[in-house]
Amino acid sequence: MNTHTLSVLVANAPGVLTRVAGLFSRRGYNIESLTVGPTLDPDVSRMTIVATVADPAILEQIVKQLNKLIEVYKIIELDAGAVDRELILLKVYCTESTRSSVIDIVNLFRAHAVDVGSESITIETTGSAEKLRAIVELLSPYGIIEMATSGHVALTRGARAMAETRRPALARA
Amino acid sequence: MNTHTLSVLVANAPGVLTRVAGLFSRRGYNIESLTVGPTLDPDVSRMTIVATVADPAILEQIVKQLNKLIEVYKIIELDAGAVDRELILLKVYCTESTRSSVIDIVNLFRAHAVDVGSESITIETTGSAEKLRAIVELLSPYGIIEMATSGHVALTRGARAMAETRRPALARA
Repeated sequence: MNTHTLSVLVANAPGVLTRVAGLFSRRGYNIESLTVGPTLDPDVSRMTIVATVADPAILEQIVKQLNKLIEVYKIIELDAGAVDRELILLKVYCTESTRSSVIDIVNLFRAHAVDVGSESITIETTGSAEKLRAIVELLSPYGIIEMATSGHVALTRGARAMAETRRPALARA
Repeated sequence: MNTHTLSVLVANAPGVLTRVAGLFSRRGYNIESLTVGPTLDPDVSRMTIVATVADPAILEQIVKQLNKLIEVYKIIELDAGAVDRELILLKVYCTESTRSSVIDIVNLFRAHAVDVGSESITIETTGSAEKLRAIVELLSPYGIIEMATSGHVALTRGARAMAETRRPALARA
């Protein structure tokens, strides 16, 4: 099974997310991770999609179908060298007696406490999927109350940009 | 216009994202931000949805419709007191002469450089939407080559969890 990361510039409009997600789900492919956020152009959003597609021909077909959507401006596949990060929020059970050991782990991972209560601490950290798995594993014995993750956010390395401009045919009339 | 943040526990299965996003788009509401990631239960994912819905009655209707989906296990609306963070990757143009001023801003925001090239620096930081807007503004004069953001990742404060268990009716047979 191969995991692919696609960086997709799309129109910032209702329905785009539904259509993009629909392309994957109609073929029965689960999107492992999808993030969407603004770009410098208020009319354009950037989606980062991580999906596992075993057959390269199927991936090619999905990319072709995505390219056919009028709201999709540009797609690139990011390689293993890309900057690829995730954000995690972890709410960990901790009392006075365990707090200092939890905080030791937090510091070790250069994570930050963003909320502290009498029975819990909520920490935030970013990193590769491997780093996040490691911190979840290390904090599990204390009791993880709940977690939320952002999914993959990725950019190519180096100064080259994926043009954040709309295709000429789509420029505002 | 009121911005609402929903934390939604859903089945980790193909098509769920399409159906959830479709509920919003069919009514013409643009989802401002949607993140989806794993929970401790491999069968359950957590979505954090931020949407602007002017009429509280419409929001209530959307929540009711979401609750009707068999793949949606639990929904809560997060209030302004929730821990709410975003991750941003920013690729900034910089040369030898501007690098130290860019790095000053990076340090001021407690951001991190994740890639440095001869003509660019890619930085990562997390924070509230306001903080992210501030760093984008401060780095704009140097030339932002491209950016990617995660969207909102949020959890309630305190030790209470939104139960990450499936509804009994949906437990594996």
